[in-house]
Amino acid sequence: MSDAIALGPGREFDIIRELLRRWGPRASGVGDDAALVDVPAGERLVVSSDASVEHIHFERAWLTAHEIGYRATTAALSDLAAMAASPIGILMALGLPASWLDAVGELGDGIGEALDAARTTIRGGDISGASDLTLAVTVLGSAAAPLRRDAARLGDTVYVTGRLGGPGDALAAWQRGGVPVPGSRERFAHPVARITEALWLARSGARAAIDISDGLIADAQHLAAASGVRIEIDLDRIPLMEGVDARSASVSGEEYELIVCAAALNVTAFERANHLPITAVGRVIDHVPDGIGVTVRMNGERLAPAPGFRHFS
Amino acid sequence: MSDAIALGPGREFDIIRELLRRWGPRASGVGDDAALVDVPAGERLVVSSDASVEHIHFERAWLTAHEIGYRATTAALSDLAAMAASPIGILMALGLPASWLDAVGELGDGIGEALDAARTTIRGGDISGASDLTLAVTVLGSAAAPLRRDAARLGDTVYVTGRLGGPGDALAAWQRGGVPVPGSRERFAHPVARITEALWLARSGARAAIDISDGLIADAQHLAAASGVRIEIDLDRIPLMEGVDARSASVSGEEYELIVCAAALNVTAFERANHLPITAVGRVIDHVPDGIGVTVRMNGERLAPAPGFRHFS
Repeated sequence: MSDAIALGPGREFDIIRELLRRWGPRASGVGDDAALVDVPAGERLVVSSDASVEHIHFERAWLTAHEIGYRATTAALSDLAAMAASPIGILMALGLPASWLDAVGELGDGIGEALDAARTTIRGGDISGASDLTLAVTVLGSAAAPLRRDAARLGDTVYVTGRLGGPGDALAAWQRGGVPVPGSRERFAHPVARITEALWLARSGARAAIDISDGLIADAQHLAAASGVRIEIDLDRIPLMEGVDARSASVSGEEYELIVCAAALNVTAFERANHLPITAVGRVIDHVPDGIGVTVRMNGERLAPAPGFRHFS
Repeated sequence: MSDAIALGPGREFDIIRELLRRWGPRASGVGDDAALVDVPAGERLVVSSDASVEHIHFERAWLTAHEIGYRATTAALSDLAAMAASPIGILMALGLPASWLDAVGELGDGIGEALDAARTTIRGGDISGASDLTLAVTVLGSAAAPLRRDAARLGDTVYVTGRLGGPGDALAAWQRGGVPVPGSRERFAHPVARITEALWLARSGARAAIDISDGLIADAQHLAAASGVRIEIDLDRIPLMEGVDARSASVSGEEYELIVCAAALNVTAFERANHLPITAVGRVIDHVPDGIGVTVRMNGERLAPAPGFRHFS
């Protein structure tokens, strides 16, 4: 906060002052029209915007304001993980309905927790009114050799980090009016941006990556489309959260685990370094004869692919 | 588009494909988890996020979708002008209600017009559902010597570009159920990000700057607070749009003209180079005895400052 520029009078700036007070050293250089950022020499800037919108991505009844702030920030930071980029900072464009004004400090604390987890800071943003709480998060990072979606090659093994199915299971419980089991709720409320894991993978042979926001199969489709290949996924090899079946796990979105393609990875070394499972769940095959896309197998049998999560379907 | 990564199936991606088709070469490198951006050697990255939200910043009845896309993008680019930064590109996090799906092409064309006006491109973004149309725009630029808010000095002259009052006049007409005069409507619907003007000013003696989003007086307050000075504004010197009085012009927001502090500027040279008026409207005075802030004068008499536009007042 010591380098924050003094702000003028007004309610909007009172909110910003309250957030800056809570963020302390986790806010850096805030207060000018734009933030000034230095990108390490020899690296490229990696930048992405990702919005979390009330009634679309979450409901107030499901999560605390702290969790909403944490989750929106982490979801955006996950795009840096997908590119194996080191965080430089974030910007937050906050759309704040009057009914959320009392919760702004708690939202800020959740954002701060996500910043700490990724060892980064907030560099600027914008606050305006809104009908629905909206957190539009821009993440800035840098990478000398970013992992991209378009680099999967024939013969690569397809890996996934962590255990899947928790967020989808939690969402299904809420949507049928129930309460999710604690493990699934925790995975929905507290995802982790796999940044250190991605940096390890980029150093250790990973060729292409994407983070799972739409679901394993849907995101494998994006990877396949970008790389011009076909990807085969074995449902029975997907690492599962307790109580979740493989089909549900394969379409569970907002996991923020990574799908990684590599000729081969040292699974034991990854797990020892990162305290996280990584599992071979499939392979990159030729797009002839079936075309670019995803084939799903279960116990050696070929299944029709299930759809991923889509906002407009 | 030739460097766009192929996208997977789904309605969300159909919308992105439609936008990419319309943007053509105005979209660059879109389709990975994050955009890769190069910052010119020896320059700093300048980055800002700014959201335009339906019912907060505009109503559908006031503007065409093309104008809404243009205006939201230009408003965000104006933060680069305020820092005298050259644009590198933008990211767009679009919150798109179902009722706006038919207008997405027109929105995209408006965004494209703003990109052309600033000679820049779109590098990435995010589309999700929303209750109200939301355009959260992140702008990326670079500058070797950015203009900041905190550098105004005692004795500086305070200048303003363009003619003020149009957007406030248009807003007032709509809010009383009327129709704004064409000149005022045009200033609201088609603001200009004063980027080339800011680059000229930064080369020609400008010391500090801010763009007018909250109103001349409110933004002069931000500048005064950041610089730790008092600013005196002569209302009778404000350059006015036709039919607008000085008091209204002094609180008219979303102008996207620049307030600039400098020991002295060559007004004639500025106007010849930029085909735009620039006017001395005040001066930087000591913050003793009246404190940091803004003093407003009219015909030599001191007035109580009028409030600026505030989202939460």
